[in-house]
Amino acid sequence: MKLASFGEFGLIRRLRRNFPSRSGGVIAGIGDDAAALRTDKAFLLLATTDMLLEGVHFDLSYTDLYSLGWKSAAVNLSDIAAMGGRPRHCLTALGIPVSIGVEKIEDFYKGLKHMLSRHKTELIGGDTCRAMSGLVVSLTMLGEVERRRILLRSGARPGDAIFVTGALGDSAAGLEILRSRAEGRGPRSAVRGSGRRSRSPIPLMYGREEKKLILKHLRPEPRVEWGREIAVSGCASSMIDLSDGLSSDLRHICEESGVGAELIYEQVPISKGLTAFSRAMGRSAMDYALSGGEDYELLFTVPRSRLDRLKAMRIPAFEIGEIVSRKGIYITDRTGKRTAVAPSGYDHFRR
Amino acid sequence: MKLASFGEFGLIRRLRRNFPSRSGGVIAGIGDDAAALRTDKAFLLLATTDMLLEGVHFDLSYTDLYSLGWKSAAVNLSDIAAMGGRPRHCLTALGIPVSIGVEKIEDFYKGLKHMLSRHKTELIGGDTCRAMSGLVVSLTMLGEVERRRILLRSGARPGDAIFVTGALGDSAAGLEILRSRAEGRGPRSAVRGSGRRSRSPIPLMYGREEKKLILKHLRPEPRVEWGREIAVSGCASSMIDLSDGLSSDLRHICEESGVGAELIYEQVPISKGLTAFSRAMGRSAMDYALSGGEDYELLFTVPRSRLDRLKAMRIPAFEIGEIVSRKGIYITDRTGKRTAVAPSGYDHFRR
Repeated sequence: MKLASFGEFGLIRRLRRNFPSRSGGVIAGIGDDAAALRTDKAFLLLATTDMLLEGVHFDLSYTDLYSLGWKSAAVNLSDIAAMGGRPRHCLTALGIPVSIGVEKIEDFYKGLKHMLSRHKTELIGGDTCRAMSGLVVSLTMLGEVERRRILLRSGARPGDAIFVTGALGDSAAGLEILRSRAEGRGPRSAVRGSGRRSRSPIPLMYGREEKKLILKHLRPEPRVEWGREIAVSGCASSMIDLSDGLSSDLRHICEESGVGAELIYEQVPISKGLTAFSRAMGRSAMDYALSGGEDYELLFTVPRSRLDRLKAMRIPAFEIGEIVSRKGIYITDRTGKRTAVAPSGYDHFRR
Repeated sequence: MKLASFGEFGLIRRLRRNFPSRSGGVIAGIGDDAAALRTDKAFLLLATTDMLLEGVHFDLSYTDLYSLGWKSAAVNLSDIAAMGGRPRHCLTALGIPVSIGVEKIEDFYKGLKHMLSRHKTELIGGDTCRAMSGLVVSLTMLGEVERRRILLRSGARPGDAIFVTGALGDSAAGLEILRSRAEGRGPRSAVRGSGRRSRSPIPLMYGREEKKLILKHLRPEPRVEWGREIAVSGCASSMIDLSDGLSSDLRHICEESGVGAELIYEQVPISKGLTAFSRAMGRSAMDYALSGGEDYELLFTVPRSRLDRLKAMRIPAFEIGEIVSRKGIYITDRTGKRTAVAPSGYDHFRR
């Protein structure tokens, strides 16, 4: 059987069956943002790993190594944040093609270091080897969380309000801008709707907003502080970070919690930049927001009785809908039209 | 500057300078077999990561996926063993080309599971993604060790006896057998010293011993129990696992401890199989033993005053030489000929 017909999440489900957690010390194992292990009475050890492959997760024709180091750290920090945890230590495994110079690898480590320092996280070890084709980056992040503060995917209950910490879809739009620019520069130009070759098919009027979209893709900001605040406040019942896309990540929450969700179209936060970009591209901004992925905002659920605790904090929180007991995810717009949200987030083995 | 002129270990040295350990909780950081973190008063958390890349570390034309899963776990378990630790938890990051079927990936996990179960280690999480070219395996292993029992690379002192837990060089010989067989099968046969194409340039008389060499390469046995016994006995002053080769790994001990080493040629343990194989190949068995790598035996040093503690245990321990204060590694044979041992172990960026 090919992986394409099986899917990434099919593989993960199979792994969970084949590697059941037996020891009492594993609070969360395969299938959450990070694993959680009991180390002492009050604290849990969090551990997560994420791999970035050249040609799959990034393209060096439009990704500088500093940004890549930054992002490698950010995506792992985001997983710790999604558990309500504090990141502490990091291990890196790098496969480096001999064609890449030392200076570029140092740029990678500078970007990595910047992101780690900002979140008070230490690089403690790793592995470095030669790669035959394409740069390979694999990071492992260790963190900690108070045992009674951990936020799993499985805690959402009907009636809980659903929140996200920021605008969605920007990263996917930023990636499209980068890609179309790279194509415009390349030998076989693929500029759409234009007879002449151009550096970019994106109208120049979006310069500043465009840059924001690109930065959101290349240098995402993991919401570590906000994740901590949400956890410490005790307001949330579940949390996840938005890496695969809202439709896919909210589905993880729903599946783990055995619930469904009703979203309100107009309440999903969309940036000015994405609105302008998607209009120019003749596409719906909501498509980017629902299935774009890589926004690294936090998605969390809050029981109505604890909304006051959320409001007492000064973190951005956009209420986008409600958890319901009936399975499935739906979105309703102001005209009352209700649509099923397809799991269109990124699955590595389905195309 | 190209990495080739800088070297893997040059890069690691640079990383250690750029990422100094600041927090008091890091007992061992970049530059030992595993990082060690203080979690509570009595225990340290151990963390290590190792990456295996298709075309660099393994070749699927002569490596089955079960063996690959086994070995991926074994090389990481070996790093925990080298700290005197007990492995506990494992995270896997896999990059899988779409051409590989689900059954093969399940074989990988079966081999992984076998090795993990044998050492009472649990798979707690990971990341799975599509790879464009070549299978990518990156494992992170977490373990623990009593704070007063940890064995670093830096504890060797002049006068200490040097031990290894088993025969050296077998894995490198096994790899050569596999490679020459694969070449014999391939379209462009590279069989040396023979006019006709043959499945293998290795004489068939070595059948059984040959198989042992191959197994040592494909399915190494990490010395977890022995590492624990050595640590708990308190006999050793330093320890490392033999992954790069004796000449290279002993050098790590010497550099970290600020010492040198004198080896005795005839005392380096060589298997019957390697003796026969290297004779047939017209090469010195000692070359394989000194620079072969991937044996995953333990190398450790014992102060003379504590030799009785080592002898009281029932673990294989071959005394191969002595730590001396003068820097450099030398080997002396029975004729009294003393030769400098070059750092010929595997460096990923030097060729």
